[in-house]
Amino acid sequence: MAKQINVGVIGAGRIGKLHAGNIVKNFPAVTVKAIADINAGGLADWAQSLGIADVYQDYKQILADPAIDAVIICSSTDTHSHITIEAAQAGKHIFCEKPIDYDVKRIHAALEAVKKAGVKFQVGFNRRFDHNFKKVRELIQSGAIGDVQIVKVTSRDPAPPPLEYVKVSGGMFLDMTIHDFDMVRYLTGSEVTEVYANAAVLVDPAIGAAGDVDTALISLKFKNGAIGMIDNCRQAVYGYDQRVEVLGTKGGITVTNDTPTTVVMSTGSAVTADKPKYFFLERYMDSFTEEMKEFFQSIAENTETAVAGIDGLKPVLIGLAAQESYRAGKPVKLEG
Amino acid sequence: MAKQINVGVIGAGRIGKLHAGNIVKNFPAVTVKAIADINAGGLADWAQSLGIADVYQDYKQILADPAIDAVIICSSTDTHSHITIEAAQAGKHIFCEKPIDYDVKRIHAALEAVKKAGVKFQVGFNRRFDHNFKKVRELIQSGAIGDVQIVKVTSRDPAPPPLEYVKVSGGMFLDMTIHDFDMVRYLTGSEVTEVYANAAVLVDPAIGAAGDVDTALISLKFKNGAIGMIDNCRQAVYGYDQRVEVLGTKGGITVTNDTPTTVVMSTGSAVTADKPKYFFLERYMDSFTEEMKEFFQSIAENTETAVAGIDGLKPVLIGLAAQESYRAGKPVKLEG
Amino acid sequence: MAKQINVGVIGAGRIGKLHAGNIVKNFPAVTVKAIADINAGGLADWAQSLGIADVYQDYKQILADPAIDAVIICSSTDTHSHITIEAAQAGKHIFCEKPIDYDVKRIHAALEAVKKAGVKFQVGFNRRFDHNFKKVRELIQSGAIGDVQIVKVTSRDPAPPPLEYVKVSGGMFLDMTIHDFDMVRYLTGSEVTEVYANAAVLVDPAIGAAGDVDTALISLKFKNGAIGMIDNCRQAVYGYDQRVEVLGTKGGITVTNDTPTTVVMSTGSAVTADKPKYFFLERYMDSFTEEMKEFFQSIAENTETAVAGIDGLKPVLIGLAAQESYRAGKPVKLEG
Amino acid sequence: MAKQINVGVIGAGRIGKLHAGNIVKNFPAVTVKAIADINAGGLADWAQSLGIADVYQDYKQILADPAIDAVIICSSTDTHSHITIEAAQAGKHIFCEKPIDYDVKRIHAALEAVKKAGVKFQVGFNRRFDHNFKKVRELIQSGAIGDVQIVKVTSRDPAPPPLEYVKVSGGMFLDMTIHDFDMVRYLTGSEVTEVYANAAVLVDPAIGAAGDVDTALISLKFKNGAIGMIDNCRQAVYGYDQRVEVLGTKGGITVTNDTPTTVVMSTGSAVTADKPKYFFLERYMDSFTEEMKEFFQSIAENTETAVAGIDGLKPVLIGLAAQESYRAGKPVKLEG
Repeated sequence: MAKQINVGVIGAGRIGKLHAGNIVKNFPAVTVKAIADINAGGLADWAQSLGIADVYQDYKQILADPAIDAVIICSSTDTHSHITIEAAQAGKHIFCEKPIDYDVKRIHAALEAVKKAGVKFQVGFNRRFDHNFKKVRELIQSGAIGDVQIVKVTSRDPAPPPLEYVKVSGGMFLDMTIHDFDMVRYLTGSEVTEVYANAAVLVDPAIGAAGDVDTALISLKFKNGAIGMIDNCRQAVYGYDQRVEVLGTKGGITVTNDTPTTVVMSTGSAVTADKPKYFFLERYMDSFTEEMKEFFQSIAENTETAVAGIDGLKPVLIGLAAQESYRAGKPVKLEG
Repeated sequence: MAKQINVGVIGAGRIGKLHAGNIVKNFPAVTVKAIADINAGGLADWAQSLGIADVYQDYKQILADPAIDAVIICSSTDTHSHITIEAAQAGKHIFCEKPIDYDVKRIHAALEAVKKAGVKFQVGFNRRFDHNFKKVRELIQSGAIGDVQIVKVTSRDPAPPPLEYVKVSGGMFLDMTIHDFDMVRYLTGSEVTEVYANAAVLVDPAIGAAGDVDTALISLKFKNGAIGMIDNCRQAVYGYDQRVEVLGTKGGITVTNDTPTTVVMSTGSAVTADKPKYFFLERYMDSFTEEMKEFFQSIAENTETAVAGIDGLKPVLIGLAAQESYRAGKPVKLEG
Repeated sequence: MAKQINVGVIGAGRIGKLHAGNIVKNFPAVTVKAIADINAGGLADWAQSLGIADVYQDYKQILADPAIDAVIICSSTDTHSHITIEAAQAGKHIFCEKPIDYDVKRIHAALEAVKKAGVKFQVGFNRRFDHNFKKVRELIQSGAIGDVQIVKVTSRDPAPPPLEYVKVSGGMFLDMTIHDFDMVRYLTGSEVTEVYANAAVLVDPAIGAAGDVDTALISLKFKNGAIGMIDNCRQAVYGYDQRVEVLGTKGGITVTNDTPTTVVMSTGSAVTADKPKYFFLERYMDSFTEEMKEFFQSIAENTETAVAGIDGLKPVLIGLAAQESYRAGKPVKLEG
Repeated sequence: MAKQINVGVIGAGRIGKLHAGNIVKNFPAVTVKAIADINAGGLADWAQSLGIADVYQDYKQILADPAIDAVIICSSTDTHSHITIEAAQAGKHIFCEKPIDYDVKRIHAALEAVKKAGVKFQVGFNRRFDHNFKKVRELIQSGAIGDVQIVKVTSRDPAPPPLEYVKVSGGMFLDMTIHDFDMVRYLTGSEVTEVYANAAVLVDPAIGAAGDVDTALISLKFKNGAIGMIDNCRQAVYGYDQRVEVLGTKGGITVTNDTPTTVVMSTGSAVTADKPKYFFLERYMDSFTEEMKEFFQSIAENTETAVAGIDGLKPVLIGLAAQESYRAGKPVKLEG
């Protein structure tokens, strides 16, 4: 990465700050030149501590800065698609947090704008860059387990989000399962052609009252003939449960959880080990850096990004199909 | 078990011989007095080595022997229901290998005859007596993990049966998954109210040509609100994969495979551990003895058997629903 | 095993009854014809239930029975050597529980008698027949890990024996570590040439007051150049800890404990797994049958026994050297 | 850490560069102002990329800079003690890589100088800051396993160092085991009172020809009554093996290796898992940052350092005793 890359971060919530901090810390060849947030008020000290030159309330000022090469879109979900369009029109490379949008037309519009502008575009499906899942993908692609027959993803949160969040989240399938829809596409290298959502409210009746579910087993068919299953729950009291299993014609692969330590203690009453790493920040911290590394590399080397526009679209389509399946009580087909 | 129990074994195939041998070896208070098989010809030596007094070609001779208290029905599946009826009418206690029948009417007739005769009746769902699964059931019933939310069963064979067997097996759902249908009922203590079978032919096209599937993910709903998933494959090249997972409101439980040894070898190229115990004879050997122990205890102490008539009926109903679901491509409801 | 073998069991304590029961249950070609115990009084019912024809107070009656081919010596340790001599003189094949004696001269005398009589002689080092350790030995002998560099044995009891037992046990090195001395010889296929015992009283001061130790790390040198370590404790509160590790020039091997089940439960407070199988009866049950199988095979096929006389002598010599080392506070050499 | 701390790094070999990079990346409140190396020639670009202002050939220029608060001594081992003395006299806080020296008198002189100057002094025993071992220490100190009875450390390198390094390394006990001597002190919270080194040349005869050993089992006694064992090898072909075990009166603790991923692949031939993380840079990367964090905290908050002068002295004394024990072939006592 010979040439210095200047980026602007749009949105300074938890994930925006996380990305800004990671970039400053890990990429000497990248400068976080500006940050924009509608609540820019309290950001000055934080921005200064990271050496970020400009703090704006309006992201358009970032887009207007000719010194900025790329934007990291971390604003609220409902702004992703139109900021993507504007950033593309301004000629900026774009890293956009998932999802691009919940409205398929707006996703298409955003991808269209990106295509027209010829800028790089990467979606924030960070789990693809996780050490465990990346190795599973590599093993599958190497042919080590033959043709994929069954893929299973277990994805459970340690505790449900606040009810206010649940209400605006787009529903569990689009908010939480969307990562798992991306994961099964990533692992199988194939598209989902059918989805059946077996779901229930088993954690908190208030989630049901808000029109959502909190527990689900989602059955999938893939274009390459494989079948799959995603297991979700908004609450596993023992912690963040992130596992995958793949069965192929020549072998099987399992991934268990990462833990803080390998310590096992045995006493007169029990043999105890660590619970999984607490939540996504602990579990996937490295992947947030890795996805940025790939994004900056695709800019520097003018290559395809690792998570393309289609990868932003497909999980939303599967999520919408899952919603429809749950409402109708039967499988829903997708184009694949 | 003060009083000696005399049993007759009907059917001297692999499982019949297994039960006879186990009984002779492990239950001093039980005598295998007779064995019957339509191919009784070559049985004399084997029977003598076990001290079995009578070898018959016709099972009716066992039923006619007033000294015999109980029969172990291990003949071919299509004979289970009518032999059960005749044995009940002859006043014999009955241990019947699974399934009782694939025809629901005939199952009802058999259970009716058992009820009328007042004899003990136990179905051969041996996995309930497995050390691992039994402990899972106990933990669930103790309340240790709260209310069950999700139950998952992985059940894969090391290699598919001969094609000739596949053709007369009743189909994978009734031949193989039937054990798993029993397992989810056993673990959750609840009845299945809906089944959706996502299945495919991914192991051997000849199995598909024979009208069956070889790989399946079966999605379930339970009367108590829980949801579940069964994962089947006729072939996992690494061996017999028999695992369960349960998520409850207060905790989760996982069961991994039993292995021949705990040896782990690390070399310059890899860290390797044992594959699972080879197949059901190796994996479930102890459970075949345990189920007999419970059967004889229920006779000796005049108590309910551990796997009652209803337990023989329900898995068949679920299996038939799974077949219907697969054919129709949508979920099928059950009475529960 | 064409010819029926008749055995007499000498000593009807826990281990004697265990062997008798195992033989009756597992070896149709072997008959337990007689049992002898100085407290023969209460044995009639038990013997009858196993179909044992003769119950004697004096073991000499077993030796005098020409129908008896072999004896299983399970009497108290101080009688092992002289009964071995008498049994050999009577022409009986001999399975003798460990140790043959604590007096080296008497061991030599016993082995001499065995040699002269030309009878089979096997010592009860049952752990050699354990599924885990047997596989380690096989891997080492196959060359899979190259030349052995380091062998480590962890051997801890769940609780100390009664103090009365400790006092007559011959001391921890001869009573408990003796199994581990056998294990390192078995695994390395080499002889111990030096022993240094680092030991202490850390479990119960009363054990120290009785002149014994309860915790030890015993450092070893082997003839083939390898070095080794045995880790003993009379009490591990979490249970019977039986592990080995071997490092070789081409790889390493580890063996972890066997557990009752593979169940892992995760709750809000911890991830818990089974403690090891409780004690030697649970842990090594299969090995008691396996060692008998080999003994009977060596008789039937007239081959060398799996645990020969030298294998009964060497661990005692190492144990005595360990005692000397502990007393002197320095390493003690052995002939090797 | 309100006040900015300026540090100078002395020695720009692998570990010096590692510390400099870590500090720049992770501690915004700390500035690496200068670096010194006798081969300062090629450092300019690297220093500039990290924003290090001054590059010196002579470390004395760092000591002469009044703006520098602390030095990180990463030069060759034979310079540690005298640079420590000079740095202390210059009033700089000192982080010194292990060992301070192999000469006990010079260690004392260095510690004396530190004491006189009243500066902070921390030794680079980074493994104390490892997530696994730190938790073991915490569990022990919490009383969770009662009084420590046995401590065992396994510490094996993936491959031996170059022979030229072996020759000047001070010998395996001082070069490699020194970390383990620190570890047992850290875990037990007690001092070693006796050491017996059972060692051999089993990896490479050339190491023996150079007067060193490559494989060892070191038996230890502790002041608090516990006993211990360290298992070393210059080469474990499967990789960097870093484990500990502790047995206490109320429980036991084991730590297994960290691995790159949790992926397990099962095929027809084997079940394979990851080898340990490759070597110390991969395995202990986080600990290098953690030890710096503690060092800077002790400066900022004027508290005791986490690894004090005595912690630099004791492992050397134990290492020298181990050398003596190996040469004499018997245990050597220490003051404790």
